[in-house]
Amino acid sequence: MNKNQDIVAPTIALPTVNARIYPRGGLDILSREEVARLRDASRGGMHDLLRRCTLAVLTTGSTSDDPRAAQELYPDFDIEVRQQDRGVRIDLKNAPAIAFVDGEIIRGVAELLAAVVRDLVYTAIELAPEYADELDTSGGITDAVFRLLRNASVLQPADPNLVVCWGGHSIGRDEYQYTKDVGYELGLRGLDICTGCGPGAMKGPMKGATIAHAKQRKRHTRYIGITEPGIIAAESPNPIVNHLVIMPDIEKRLESFVRLGHGIVVFPGGVGTAEEILYLLGILLREENAQLPFPLILTGPVASAPYFEQIDRFIRLTLGEAATRRYEIIVGNPEKVARQMASGIRTVREHRLAQKDSFYFNWSLEVPLEFQQPFQPTHEAMAGLDLHHGRKPHELAADLRRAFSGIVAGNVKEDGMRRIEQFGPFQIHGDTDMMESLDALLRAFVEQRRMKIAGDYKPCYEVIA
Amino acid sequence: MNKNQDIVAPTIALPTVNARIYPRGGLDILSREEVARLRDASRGGMHDLLRRCTLAVLTTGSTSDDPRAAQELYPDFDIEVRQQDRGVRIDLKNAPAIAFVDGEIIRGVAELLAAVVRDLVYTAIELAPEYADELDTSGGITDAVFRLLRNASVLQPADPNLVVCWGGHSIGRDEYQYTKDVGYELGLRGLDICTGCGPGAMKGPMKGATIAHAKQRKRHTRYIGITEPGIIAAESPNPIVNHLVIMPDIEKRLESFVRLGHGIVVFPGGVGTAEEILYLLGILLREENAQLPFPLILTGPVASAPYFEQIDRFIRLTLGEAATRRYEIIVGNPEKVARQMASGIRTVREHRLAQKDSFYFNWSLEVPLEFQQPFQPTHEAMAGLDLHHGRKPHELAADLRRAFSGIVAGNVKEDGMRRIEQFGPFQIHGDTDMMESLDALLRAFVEQRRMKIAGDYKPCYEVIA
Amino acid sequence: MNKNQDIVAPTIALPTVNARIYPRGGLDILSREEVARLRDASRGGMHDLLRRCTLAVLTTGSTSDDPRAAQELYPDFDIEVRQQDRGVRIDLKNAPAIAFVDGEIIRGVAELLAAVVRDLVYTAIELAPEYADELDTSGGITDAVFRLLRNASVLQPADPNLVVCWGGHSIGRDEYQYTKDVGYELGLRGLDICTGCGPGAMKGPMKGATIAHAKQRKRHTRYIGITEPGIIAAESPNPIVNHLVIMPDIEKRLESFVRLGHGIVVFPGGVGTAEEILYLLGILLREENAQLPFPLILTGPVASAPYFEQIDRFIRLTLGEAATRRYEIIVGNPEKVARQMASGIRTVREHRLAQKDSFYFNWSLEVPLEFQQPFQPTHEAMAGLDLHHGRKPHELAADLRRAFSGIVAGNVKEDGMRRIEQFGPFQIHGDTDMMESLDALLRAFVEQRRMKIAGDYKPCYEVIA
Amino acid sequence: MNKNQDIVAPTIALPTVNARIYPRGGLDILSREEVARLRDASRGGMHDLLRRCTLAVLTTGSTSDDPRAAQELYPDFDIEVRQQDRGVRIDLKNAPAIAFVDGEIIRGVAELLAAVVRDLVYTAIELAPEYADELDTSGGITDAVFRLLRNASVLQPADPNLVVCWGGHSIGRDEYQYTKDVGYELGLRGLDICTGCGPGAMKGPMKGATIAHAKQRKRHTRYIGITEPGIIAAESPNPIVNHLVIMPDIEKRLESFVRLGHGIVVFPGGVGTAEEILYLLGILLREENAQLPFPLILTGPVASAPYFEQIDRFIRLTLGEAATRRYEIIVGNPEKVARQMASGIRTVREHRLAQKDSFYFNWSLEVPLEFQQPFQPTHEAMAGLDLHHGRKPHELAADLRRAFSGIVAGNVKEDGMRRIEQFGPFQIHGDTDMMESLDALLRAFVEQRRMKIAGDYKPCYEVIA
Repeated sequence: MNKNQDIVAPTIALPTVNARIYPRGGLDILSREEVARLRDASRGGMHDLLRRCTLAVLTTGSTSDDPRAAQELYPDFDIEVRQQDRGVRIDLKNAPAIAFVDGEIIRGVAELLAAVVRDLVYTAIELAPEYADELDTSGGITDAVFRLLRNASVLQPADPNLVVCWGGHSIGRDEYQYTKDVGYELGLRGLDICTGCGPGAMKGPMKGATIAHAKQRKRHTRYIGITEPGIIAAESPNPIVNHLVIMPDIEKRLESFVRLGHGIVVFPGGVGTAEEILYLLGILLREENAQLPFPLILTGPVASAPYFEQIDRFIRLTLGEAATRRYEIIVGNPEKVARQMASGIRTVREHRLAQKDSFYFNWSLEVPLEFQQPFQPTHEAMAGLDLHHGRKPHELAADLRRAFSGIVAGNVKEDGMRRIEQFGPFQIHGDTDMMESLDALLRAFVEQRRMKIAGDYKPCYEVIA
Repeated sequence: MNKNQDIVAPTIALPTVNARIYPRGGLDILSREEVARLRDASRGGMHDLLRRCTLAVLTTGSTSDDPRAAQELYPDFDIEVRQQDRGVRIDLKNAPAIAFVDGEIIRGVAELLAAVVRDLVYTAIELAPEYADELDTSGGITDAVFRLLRNASVLQPADPNLVVCWGGHSIGRDEYQYTKDVGYELGLRGLDICTGCGPGAMKGPMKGATIAHAKQRKRHTRYIGITEPGIIAAESPNPIVNHLVIMPDIEKRLESFVRLGHGIVVFPGGVGTAEEILYLLGILLREENAQLPFPLILTGPVASAPYFEQIDRFIRLTLGEAATRRYEIIVGNPEKVARQMASGIRTVREHRLAQKDSFYFNWSLEVPLEFQQPFQPTHEAMAGLDLHHGRKPHELAADLRRAFSGIVAGNVKEDGMRRIEQFGPFQIHGDTDMMESLDALLRAFVEQRRMKIAGDYKPCYEVIA
Repeated sequence: MNKNQDIVAPTIALPTVNARIYPRGGLDILSREEVARLRDASRGGMHDLLRRCTLAVLTTGSTSDDPRAAQELYPDFDIEVRQQDRGVRIDLKNAPAIAFVDGEIIRGVAELLAAVVRDLVYTAIELAPEYADELDTSGGITDAVFRLLRNASVLQPADPNLVVCWGGHSIGRDEYQYTKDVGYELGLRGLDICTGCGPGAMKGPMKGATIAHAKQRKRHTRYIGITEPGIIAAESPNPIVNHLVIMPDIEKRLESFVRLGHGIVVFPGGVGTAEEILYLLGILLREENAQLPFPLILTGPVASAPYFEQIDRFIRLTLGEAATRRYEIIVGNPEKVARQMASGIRTVREHRLAQKDSFYFNWSLEVPLEFQQPFQPTHEAMAGLDLHHGRKPHELAADLRRAFSGIVAGNVKEDGMRRIEQFGPFQIHGDTDMMESLDALLRAFVEQRRMKIAGDYKPCYEVIA
Repeated sequence: MNKNQDIVAPTIALPTVNARIYPRGGLDILSREEVARLRDASRGGMHDLLRRCTLAVLTTGSTSDDPRAAQELYPDFDIEVRQQDRGVRIDLKNAPAIAFVDGEIIRGVAELLAAVVRDLVYTAIELAPEYADELDTSGGITDAVFRLLRNASVLQPADPNLVVCWGGHSIGRDEYQYTKDVGYELGLRGLDICTGCGPGAMKGPMKGATIAHAKQRKRHTRYIGITEPGIIAAESPNPIVNHLVIMPDIEKRLESFVRLGHGIVVFPGGVGTAEEILYLLGILLREENAQLPFPLILTGPVASAPYFEQIDRFIRLTLGEAATRRYEIIVGNPEKVARQMASGIRTVREHRLAQKDSFYFNWSLEVPLEFQQPFQPTHEAMAGLDLHHGRKPHELAADLRRAFSGIVAGNVKEDGMRRIEQFGPFQIHGDTDMMESLDALLRAFVEQRRMKIAGDYKPCYEVIA
């Protein structure tokens, strides 16, 4: 990684740098044709996306959490991908000086930068509309996810040891400390971490694991951050991430988590975290996946016990007792979390060996098409949900996740709130007890400040039994 | 690389083994889709090709030189590529036991085996007819060559140090020893070797370099063998080759040599070697390539001096004195060959740096379409040649190469000999002195037993001034 | 590193573990004779020392700072070094469970444990009394320091990049954060850290550097902690230390710092830190060392400026303006500290190259015998000091350091206070202004709570002009 | 390894070079004191030894076998070890140019050169007369052997895989080819080779293994050559050796073989080889070693079968049938040799694990003092031998070895022949059948040209029953 640069006067207040970067790692041996396509893509429709994502990476680890801040603080930042006979050159203009040391870009930042270019370009070129037909099938989507992850070099034929950690990005100090403690205990046991790559519960486990890995003298550590273009600007990759992957959308990002990870730990979070739990249960409760071992642990500090109690109660009532066999709730015991996870992953390893399944990608997990496609919470779609007892648990889980998603949109998202104003409350078909339980859950989130509401909470739906 | 196997009774005399191989290195992280395509290709039209090439690799280093021998000695050998959830499995039936140690395949052989599968499949899938339009342009062909070499992992962004060695596969003992001596001196200077991967002048330089590399404690050594399906069976890769590449045809193989190598050493050989020299001069004498440094050394032991004198005389007469600036003839001095080559490659390095050209692929070299496409020596094609003084040297070189190729075919190749019988001698338009010189060259080859003729040599062409 | 162990019931409250450890790294290839001597030494007079030091290492990173705590919390802890044909086995009884994960010792802790055994045994065997004559000369002591460091594998023929950080072990929160910030900036510039291996200013720089090294993807990082038996129990190595060295006494520890380090950063500390500055100036101001580059930076946050101002004033008055050329004071600017240090170390590198001096040990630095031997602050010794203007600065610096050391002892150390009570105040021969300045400095330390005194500060000496 | 050098005019015919070498690997981190001792030793009594040994290394791989040749061809060669602040510098004057490439020393040669300096100096300094008392005991000698080998870095805690190969240095072409074939089969099975480091049976196995290791892609290969000052000049290390050790004398060299190696293959050789077999049986037949697994295979091509048949017959008659359980004779089957050796070494591994004995040094093998001390074949010593049936086999083996050694000396060594001339034949006390068998063995060696005699063979001893 070389570069030339001139220190230039910052436009506003923050110092900036102009630099030329010759990236490595997948971008160093390209054909002339590929370089040309890369350059064209980066100048064309992809340019703004590229600009936003690279700025997020260049401000990694800066204190502010506000995505708009970065755009405003570095209004003149620009990026250009250029062709050279020897490969690719990335020109940065008015880039944040904090990404540089004595005029030289920090090596880890340069790697993240190359990852952004690599993934956006791969998506633009290899998953372009002309492949649209492939992306219509479940298998085609899974294949696309696989190829993107392989291109990002995160598929390695090593022993299973990857723990995915989910949870809120803005959690309390105690909860954050707890995620660090869990990460530390996981790290002591040689486990690597994969998260959504932002702050909060996505950063804590990596930080704890870093210290534990150092103590255990672990050389090859993986702190994988998987994000998507809509989130990366708001949730800039924390500086510990050493493998960054940008998936094209939320659904492919979720599929990456469940296919890459050998187990999942869920920390307290907002409604998004609850949705993710329902997504996962909707998959794991399918008959096809019944025999697949998949360690899933819900955990938090003692003070956060109510969060998981409510979720647990809601799951029991809606999906039935059997659903609870798929997860374990552990409160205030990081060491136990790590011990259980390590033991669960050993089971995964044995299962994969017995099935001659790969270690690095969970091909056997059945993820149906409806989990791979976005859900748009229109009034029609919401009216089409079927929340009654007696349905197959995984189907119910899928509809509950959709209901959840729609209600949240109706309460806090601009788009959803406008619809409610215009067309009135959603009409949801469902059993009353189930809907009351859902309501109770949402109210609890509001109380715990995990869902931010202007004024009092008022349901945005009506139940039609 | 694991495997299970049963020792089975050999069908004829030679012991064979049944084995299952789980290959690594590019074949270990495949998508389900890719594995399926690989399996289908290996069962379909590609199966016989695959069978022949893998048998060549499995008999690597065995004493016999006769390609048919392998087919006859192992008549029941078969190969099947199978799909497993975890990737690819290669099943070998009645495979030569010499490729195994205590029932376990020799690791180097397994690597060559995986290389065969990798390249044949890449060609079958990625360079299939539906890409035919791409392969109509010179740039498209170069791009295909690049991608095949990259897929074979022989493109590395390291300092230039790759010497291509050309020469005959059946040369005399003294000439063979000389190729070893040159390889030794090249190896002492840290240079790696690339050849056509068979015996003779393709093996000697690698053998010499191996000893020198060991003495210099060189860790990362590259003995690259580039072959093509029509040759591999007859010229089984020598056991030193640690990177094997199978290009789809002779022209792409030649282009690989000139784009990968940083310099070329030509040892004595048959008419094929003379053709290769004309191929290379036809490229290097183009105006576009005039400024490109490209070390080219013709060398052999003292006793082989006449071979190069005749070639040199022929080039001077046909292409002019200027053409001789592109090569140096060194006789009986391996150390000088190595010193000159090392110095020439340093110049290549500086030139690439100055031009910001890549170290691993000579993009700047202009190889026109007619050098990338096969030449069919029909009577029409031969009559179309224009061998007169006054033409541009590189065009004349190209036509001379074709004339050469056609005349050789007319003398020794079944297909060509039949045509001559049927339609009479080729009618070649050319200046008399040039054709006489060509004739003298061919006669000398016959005398030196470098071209094998049944009976007396009789020209198969007539000159039309 | 293997081990067997049984979890046993803790004697008091804290859980303990019995374990067997087979150490690596210098202890793995021993002769039978060496193993026997090691075992004997560990059972004989060295046993208590070994027990205390290993307990310190096993409680690494635990929250308590109180050394006695460890001894009281693990009263039944014991260690035995045993002989096995294959080498050394260390048996731990009732060892702190916090050093273990699921019954397996943390690898980093095991390394520190092996380092303790290695160094204590080397000192006991190789620097035993029978070598006493060697240790009477300055060269002999330096040689012993060299051999101990080499045996600890901290002498590496790599480029100069080792920054020694000095400062207090119990500093304020702001000062601690500042040491982290400086460590971070040093780490960003590829510099490694060496400290006294305890908490406070000995931990902060390592912690900051760890994060920076991760960001810069630095693979081979060195966090060297150099301690001695009298300190290690009280200042347990922080968990980041990956190279631990236990020197036999304070003087050899100080010599290790100045011969190993390529530059020194001094953070605010107590009187000990002030003494260390005088030790270093006493060496650097010698004519023999005048031409040796040795970057020395005194730095702290803005709020700590007074500390260095007082020291600076004291040095100017006593040793003269010229002495200040040997150091630079930087306040509140971690980035500048790192830039200056990196630049200073580049000068060191060039100087060593020009002098053909080694990179890993500063042989050229003249450290006279009186700096290598302990100073006992008896009344006679104190009366022998000569604190008058006009002396050579380095001699005056040495005597000032001794005066300082004696006065501190008279004020706060049990032994010294008893002597004062018994024989009255020290009689120090010195110029009045110099002694007043010394007095002012001490009073400032008391005010800033850097020297802890029961009751009011009362000088324990009388000046005799 | 750097160097400066001037090409100088050769004194006689062969080109020479002056060079300065800065060695690595154990000589790079020395104390000033050590460097001074090294320099003094190399100038003092050790200088001639050092000069001879380094010249042997510098002419490694040259065609001539005659040690005197080297001395005569390079009469002005000299070496000086010099002190530099940064470590050691070796100055070579009029050194053979064949050890250099374009003025730069071949890296492997430089390593062997550093090994020579390292071992001679270690012996001169660490095993000097003042340690004589230590070397009076069996344990002390074993300890010295251990420390010398450790200092040479050949003790590695890796899995047992080291095969010692013994046999003649001037053997026939077929026998040489056979040693290569066996080395090849050993290498295919991942085994490393240790020999006496000269030509013939000491080179062949390494050469074969090199090719096999390359085919098996074995990265860390060990070709250990163990020699001693009296032999190295005559048997210059072959160029494949990558670990050279110079033991102080023949007995320590033999002890190194039996303690380092995990199994021994004996090829046909001269009388020296027969002596080595008796040495080994004298050790293995001791009761203390009865339970120790130690694979020992005697092997050669079919044509060499008589050699081992005679030895076998001699052993049966003298030491009894039981002795033959300690070895296996395999004729004309390299693959079987390798399979048996690999299997034997697996047993060694299990035994060491069970006994917790080290992998890298056979501490458990009992080698008594008389095997560690030289035998001087005076008439008194020969008369003291006791070659009667009924003695313990290992004692008889020891005496047979001595008798053998004395008789060979009396027949072919200048010193021994003179004694016989002066004092008449040796008077040996022994049973007639045993002595006749010995006689038959010697006559066979003469016939097979394995012992070179001027004129007819005439016994140099008389039997006294």
